[in-house]
Amino acid sequence: MSDGTARPRARDAGVILGTMEPGPLNAITDVPDVRVGHVTLIEGSGPLERGRGPIRTGVTAILPHGGNLFREKVPAGLFVLNGFGKCFGQEQIEEFGAIESPIMMTGTMNVGIVADGVAEYMMRHNPDIAVTTSTANALVTECSDAYLNDMQGRHVRQQHVREAIERAAGGPVEEGTIGAGTGMSLYGFKGGIGTASRRLPDELGGFTVGAMVLGNFGRRDQLMIAGVPVGRALVDWRPPETMRDTGSCIVLLATDAPMLDRTLRRLARRAALGLARTGSLAGNTSGDFIVAFSNAVRLPHDSEELMVTLQHVTEGGHLIDALIQASVEATEEAVINTLFRATTLDGWDDHVRYALPLDLTLDLLRKAGALHETP
Amino acid sequence: MSDGTARPRARDAGVILGTMEPGPLNAITDVPDVRVGHVTLIEGSGPLERGRGPIRTGVTAILPHGGNLFREKVPAGLFVLNGFGKCFGQEQIEEFGAIESPIMMTGTMNVGIVADGVAEYMMRHNPDIAVTTSTANALVTECSDAYLNDMQGRHVRQQHVREAIERAAGGPVEEGTIGAGTGMSLYGFKGGIGTASRRLPDELGGFTVGAMVLGNFGRRDQLMIAGVPVGRALVDWRPPETMRDTGSCIVLLATDAPMLDRTLRRLARRAALGLARTGSLAGNTSGDFIVAFSNAVRLPHDSEELMVTLQHVTEGGHLIDALIQASVEATEEAVINTLFRATTLDGWDDHVRYALPLDLTLDLLRKAGALHETP
Amino acid sequence: MSDGTARPRARDAGVILGTMEPGPLNAITDVPDVRVGHVTLIEGSGPLERGRGPIRTGVTAILPHGGNLFREKVPAGLFVLNGFGKCFGQEQIEEFGAIESPIMMTGTMNVGIVADGVAEYMMRHNPDIAVTTSTANALVTECSDAYLNDMQGRHVRQQHVREAIERAAGGPVEEGTIGAGTGMSLYGFKGGIGTASRRLPDELGGFTVGAMVLGNFGRRDQLMIAGVPVGRALVDWRPPETMRDTGSCIVLLATDAPMLDRTLRRLARRAALGLARTGSLAGNTSGDFIVAFSNAVRLPHDSEELMVTLQHVTEGGHLIDALIQASVEATEEAVINTLFRATTLDGWDDHVRYALPLDLTLDLLRKAGALHETP
Amino acid sequence: MSDGTARPRARDAGVILGTMEPGPLNAITDVPDVRVGHVTLIEGSGPLERGRGPIRTGVTAILPHGGNLFREKVPAGLFVLNGFGKCFGQEQIEEFGAIESPIMMTGTMNVGIVADGVAEYMMRHNPDIAVTTSTANALVTECSDAYLNDMQGRHVRQQHVREAIERAAGGPVEEGTIGAGTGMSLYGFKGGIGTASRRLPDELGGFTVGAMVLGNFGRRDQLMIAGVPVGRALVDWRPPETMRDTGSCIVLLATDAPMLDRTLRRLARRAALGLARTGSLAGNTSGDFIVAFSNAVRLPHDSEELMVTLQHVTEGGHLIDALIQASVEATEEAVINTLFRATTLDGWDDHVRYALPLDLTLDLLRKAGALHETP
Repeated sequence: MSDGTARPRARDAGVILGTMEPGPLNAITDVPDVRVGHVTLIEGSGPLERGRGPIRTGVTAILPHGGNLFREKVPAGLFVLNGFGKCFGQEQIEEFGAIESPIMMTGTMNVGIVADGVAEYMMRHNPDIAVTTSTANALVTECSDAYLNDMQGRHVRQQHVREAIERAAGGPVEEGTIGAGTGMSLYGFKGGIGTASRRLPDELGGFTVGAMVLGNFGRRDQLMIAGVPVGRALVDWRPPETMRDTGSCIVLLATDAPMLDRTLRRLARRAALGLARTGSLAGNTSGDFIVAFSNAVRLPHDSEELMVTLQHVTEGGHLIDALIQASVEATEEAVINTLFRATTLDGWDDHVRYALPLDLTLDLLRKAGALHETP
Repeated sequence: MSDGTARPRARDAGVILGTMEPGPLNAITDVPDVRVGHVTLIEGSGPLERGRGPIRTGVTAILPHGGNLFREKVPAGLFVLNGFGKCFGQEQIEEFGAIESPIMMTGTMNVGIVADGVAEYMMRHNPDIAVTTSTANALVTECSDAYLNDMQGRHVRQQHVREAIERAAGGPVEEGTIGAGTGMSLYGFKGGIGTASRRLPDELGGFTVGAMVLGNFGRRDQLMIAGVPVGRALVDWRPPETMRDTGSCIVLLATDAPMLDRTLRRLARRAALGLARTGSLAGNTSGDFIVAFSNAVRLPHDSEELMVTLQHVTEGGHLIDALIQASVEATEEAVINTLFRATTLDGWDDHVRYALPLDLTLDLLRKAGALHETP
Repeated sequence: MSDGTARPRARDAGVILGTMEPGPLNAITDVPDVRVGHVTLIEGSGPLERGRGPIRTGVTAILPHGGNLFREKVPAGLFVLNGFGKCFGQEQIEEFGAIESPIMMTGTMNVGIVADGVAEYMMRHNPDIAVTTSTANALVTECSDAYLNDMQGRHVRQQHVREAIERAAGGPVEEGTIGAGTGMSLYGFKGGIGTASRRLPDELGGFTVGAMVLGNFGRRDQLMIAGVPVGRALVDWRPPETMRDTGSCIVLLATDAPMLDRTLRRLARRAALGLARTGSLAGNTSGDFIVAFSNAVRLPHDSEELMVTLQHVTEGGHLIDALIQASVEATEEAVINTLFRATTLDGWDDHVRYALPLDLTLDLLRKAGALHETP
Repeated sequence: MSDGTARPRARDAGVILGTMEPGPLNAITDVPDVRVGHVTLIEGSGPLERGRGPIRTGVTAILPHGGNLFREKVPAGLFVLNGFGKCFGQEQIEEFGAIESPIMMTGTMNVGIVADGVAEYMMRHNPDIAVTTSTANALVTECSDAYLNDMQGRHVRQQHVREAIERAAGGPVEEGTIGAGTGMSLYGFKGGIGTASRRLPDELGGFTVGAMVLGNFGRRDQLMIAGVPVGRALVDWRPPETMRDTGSCIVLLATDAPMLDRTLRRLARRAALGLARTGSLAGNTSGDFIVAFSNAVRLPHDSEELMVTLQHVTEGGHLIDALIQASVEATEEAVINTLFRATTLDGWDDHVRYALPLDLTLDLLRKAGALHETP
């Protein structure tokens, strides 16, 4: 079951979040050379047969650039808002301050398989890994799609990992009930994938910050859109069975501003503030991980040189504050885009996760004076 | 110059933040045995004479309980949202998971003097410190009051430290332009001290979470109250000279739920989400530190026993989520109470920091449907 | 090729490290109810055929207790001495301070598969995981066995994971070229698995600290045994092809002293000091992870209670210092036991990793007066 | 009471630690432009009069370079081996990855006063601090000199802070019972200040790593010199009253290799391994802090540029491993130099801390074959 209706993105519906301008696509792919690919797995319906289905899961790959990531690593920093989850590969990223693989999102119980699939992919493209050079580190993040999906079945396969990576492309990003977002829930509505971006003015370098969210968290009554407590007003609309915050959230921040691990970690921490603007409490079992990377700096795997020369944004002036604000705003809008674009999906037994009702939502925003309507 | 007007707290003016109930005082002192004391230093006016004045500073002491804190330490956890600041004593609190002294707030350049004053105080009450038992750890936090105060003068003295500690009492907490908050600025308005609390329902133990904020951060245009972008509407009202986020913020969370350092650290991280609800971006030079403690557990300094028996809240059920929500809501409301209660103050040269104009603010909230007015 | 000679453990050969007494087995299994199981995979020889062999790898399982670990979690703390590696599951252990699964060791590229195998194992024993209760967290650690093993082949299978867990038992622990240690190298000699323990005196509770090491690090010239620079003297004995520190090290510390995550983290940090006593520099690409757990405290997965009562060692007296010393000494001895017990093994192409020559080693120790010989 | 005997440094006495070559001074000042200054306070003798004396304390200043540190900050990273102590200024160093002040060492209870003194010093040299630019961050570290010194008296004054900074110079560094080291104890012998360095070969850039230690930790029986358990053999020689590890240790690492906070943090962690080689267990109440900085990179306080260009050592090759080894070896030798150079000192009541007896020590090393004697 899927409602199939064309649903606008938040900004197209008049929901203007923050004060900075988005990039042309209002997507993480506004950061030049960032690529995104999805594989969506939807099969079967009816009662849960553990290990068999129904299947409502997927995998999403984000490539920081289009080259060989193992050979040209990118600086990265993480922030764990709530560590109830798995973030395969985190330790090495923290130690070396760099990502050297595609970044994967998937359902919780698939992490082992996806990590193995990325290893396979990387060794095929770098046959010296684990033979004549070091091993490779993957980065695999997850949220739980257990409400709709037979998660015990771990239905993602190596070929799906490869496909998601190979499909990864620039341009507009599909959002909502797709890829890793297929089986996710967000504030008691259908969740999934969302994205947004902010572009800094030319006098601040014209850099872009893009956010991509795997949104799967929150109790319905917590939801705020543009500051309006929409969730409380919709508590009784097709109410979810439980009113608990049992999900998780992954946020990726990408930028073409030249930054290193420490300042990227500083940005990652700010994404938590963007989540909070939508109502997030980072509930007890909500595994909330944020990863930020810059693809304007490349760290070579092999180097004959003793030293490397790096560019880095200065931290004393207006630029760093603009990057901070962009991170908060892009994260907030990516969450709301997830809700706007995700479509209703049924799962096992009689589980159904309904899409956010846009008409009711826009009415609530309009009443609060929070909708920017063009005549 | 001080406007002197009696200003209501946010809730008394109809601003209801969050959905949980406050404690009877809606203050950190709703947590039994927590005590607060202020010393306010306001002297002189006119041009800045570095090292002499004018003086617009102070010191605030928070006592986790009324006993000998060195002998009966309390569990504590910290979260550094942005480390641009000093948090004297943090290292030992992180290592041992406990606070053993009064918690002090003051202006940035006073930290060394206040730390020394706390040392003096503790040795007077525990003459064995640094002679026959170990040394003592103080916890001194700060924000910059440089806009109004001759901060180079470091006008706080040991006697002020002692007075703040000795004045500390339960009951209603004075807020606004007082104590450590004397010279602070918040979202381009007058800032300072604010507090709030949330009480859990009886079936969740009836525990209380109290927050106290030293609020000194934010650009005016960022300010949100109850989700309404009040700051943007007030950008041209007595505009501040600069529109930068150059302050800092200290949040204390207190609870009588039995918790240890790890879970208190989890609460501390959530206070950042409460700051975000008021518009905080944790700007580049905003030193934002959060400390959470529980006074329901006491850790003895001297013990002949090999083992200690501790109570701790379980983390699997609704209780921990309620404590999380209480931390977010109390923090948000403490920030807004700061703005509601702080009164206009002039400083050196022609610096003046104006109090939030309540009439204009309440009008904006009313229009957005965000004011709860009783007929 | 394997030399097959019976090789003594260090202490049996007169090498007395530290001053505390070991437990009866001088093994991690001296901590009551701790269990260890190995699966060793050795197949083929000759030239490397990537993805096919030769196979020199394995998997080792450590069970903190013999019950259902998901239902009765144990407190745990980690220290990352050098994060060049994967430590699957670390994030949740840091957030919740607990381990809820068997702890696995394996070769680097097997981590994804082993994580998936643990997930399978846990769901079989807890069918509610990811359906009516939360997901489960595994802990999978690794070192690189690339020098001897076709690591690209990822030859560990789910059944091997299950077998290692099901074989896990108390009693003496097999050391050296076995389980996860099969293909490992240590200070340019054959490495692998080693263990040791220390028992505190009765007046300090009679608690035990056990260490288990997956030793795969170090340049030969760095090796010190009992403070004697044995490695430098053996640099020309069957010299390894390269003199670089390209391995990794995993240390597990187990105790029956009641401790929680913070104090276990404190113990974990001390294990690094034990590694240093054997000559470790924690080289650039040596992924050195330390995990400490206590099985004297059990944290229930499901609890109807609001609060739990916990025992914990006091930190003010002699007990904590004894636990610290025990951690350092047991770690040091576990590394040296690895070298004493590991046997020569060939790998792909003409790779051979020779066992530490015990006669030469004991001669060097004897000359330095560092051998305790019984007449 | 002071024995006054000229005591050699370890290497001059034939104690060769590690395998790398020291710089010309074998001191932290081998790193070009690093400066060290001491102020030693010794007054009175006889019974302890709390707050009055006897005085056995001091202050030591280390300047990363000879310019204006606030205007030209240096990258820095920290490692807290054991956080039982105060490390004033740590938070900002971790957030911004830089030191902007002289680095101070002193006795524990003096930290507040010394921090205030550094603030005074910095504002005098940068009158815009806290007026037209941001506040300044000091870095003040400490160990407890309570055994010999009237620590309650906090006898260091602002003028001593200024003098230590102004005296700071390159060239040979005074070691032992001097400056901050005046009242310190090390492994039950007299402790204090020690230093050492390692110079990398030209093909690895010829960089230098220097270490400086404020050594005040350890039980006598733990002491190892060049791997020889000297401490156990000297347990009965003028035995200390207590055999507990109640001190602390500060290590500074300086280098002229261009590095940033992350890699400096990696070096700092390795200094712990150097401490371990001398026998350190990082005992429960031993506050062990390590700070590493590079003065080859300068971070401007004010910059009109959006971006800065930085040099950084590559992490893939032999250079980083050599820097790691240098950090371990220089730290180890700095601790042993402390013991070799420190001279016996009496304190309050009948407290006396005896210098390590060099004849007995060298005999023990000679017997173990660990002394390099020239004919």
